[in-house]
Amino acid sequence: MLVRTTHPGNIGAAARAMHTMGLAHLVLVSPLQFPHPEADARATGATALLTAAKVVATLNDALEGCALAIGLSARPRAFAGRVMAVREAAREAVARTGDGDVALVFGTEMSGLSNDELARCGIASTIPANPDYPSLNLAAAVQVAAYELRVACGEGCVWRAPHFAAASHDDVEALYVHAEKTLAGMRFLNPAHPKRLMARLRRLFGRAGLEHEEVNILRGILARIDQLVSRRPR
Amino acid sequence: MLVRTTHPGNIGAAARAMHTMGLAHLVLVSPLQFPHPEADARATGATALLTAAKVVATLNDALEGCALAIGLSARPRAFAGRVMAVREAAREAVARTGDGDVALVFGTEMSGLSNDELARCGIASTIPANPDYPSLNLAAAVQVAAYELRVACGEGCVWRAPHFAAASHDDVEALYVHAEKTLAGMRFLNPAHPKRLMARLRRLFGRAGLEHEEVNILRGILARIDQLVSRRPR
Repeated sequence: MLVRTTHPGNIGAAARAMHTMGLAHLVLVSPLQFPHPEADARATGATALLTAAKVVATLNDALEGCALAIGLSARPRAFAGRVMAVREAAREAVARTGDGDVALVFGTEMSGLSNDELARCGIASTIPANPDYPSLNLAAAVQVAAYELRVACGEGCVWRAPHFAAASHDDVEALYVHAEKTLAGMRFLNPAHPKRLMARLRRLFGRAGLEHEEVNILRGILARIDQLVSRRPR
Repeated sequence: MLVRTTHPGNIGAAARAMHTMGLAHLVLVSPLQFPHPEADARATGATALLTAAKVVATLNDALEGCALAIGLSARPRAFAGRVMAVREAAREAVARTGDGDVALVFGTEMSGLSNDELARCGIASTIPANPDYPSLNLAAAVQVAAYELRVACGEGCVWRAPHFAAASHDDVEALYVHAEKTLAGMRFLNPAHPKRLMARLRRLFGRAGLEHEEVNILRGILARIDQLVSRRPR
């Protein structure tokens, strides 16, 4: 997934990079210019990926139904979840393919993913780079990540049939929405400064990798708290 | 080393790819057009590599004094020497740096290295790719090879997630005791069959590996629920 890409040439080059590594499903979130002749030119033999690309308005739309989102970021300072080098993240992605679609999310050429966009991802992944000049071209970053995915697939990574069904991205996001509301309702969370607590909870549950049944249990607890809160105090 | 590169933009993009991975010495063998504004444009912050680039007439000139040359090739059919995937070749390159300069050699955009050029190399290296479309852009191939060199150098982790203190065993057990009491108090947990729910919660938090601060947050939430429960219903 490419988020708010500025230069259509980079979209084409990213499609080519994906195709060289056998990846097919390109999602464009609010691209500045697309379709565009420059995208076609840079895609060379991979124009089929551009034709088939899904264009959506928001990252939430793009992530709907995904089992796991991995956000690429040079310096995920504000990210509360797990941070992995791209090699490790690729292995995790391959291990999770049994759960459903895994998305790799890339931000803009100038500033990458915003903190809010990265917070939608279960894992933040960095590409090891020169600390004095870590600015890989967008398509180059796609190339490295796609390459690591391909190598991870070939390394005999087990197709892990999960013992329990993983929760979908949508279910987990709905859980956080519910939790924020309930925690505010019980006056545990300060609505003026909700971010830190929610970020900590995202980090905790992101690390665990929530299962479908666990989301149900947690939402059941939240619903019961909602009932308690709705009683008037003496 | 880039041999007979056709498009100056690719030279610039290759310089950028090198610089992102901390490589500095670019050698151009008989480039079609260089210097060129398109090379400067695509190099962005890495124009210093272009200024310092050595331009020579033949690959033999370029390889003079090198301890090892590794030729990148999609299909080194005619090559008589050792063929390695780029990850293995990068490790070999790092192992040989004590012997002198190690060169990575890239051919033209259209046809790569000729058999004669590849024969000048001690090792032929391939980048794992989609067999139906293995044609990485030149700068993308440079990016992957430079990335593997950087990882092989052991600089694989430039960004470390902030370290948080793990919770002690006793703290975690006390959390479970508190949670069981609270969940029973709020009539979410059936005291006749408490085991299954607590086992599920243990499984979830055990997988995450709780941190000290997270235990405090969760106990804070439980304590707030205890207050809500202690109010009498209307």
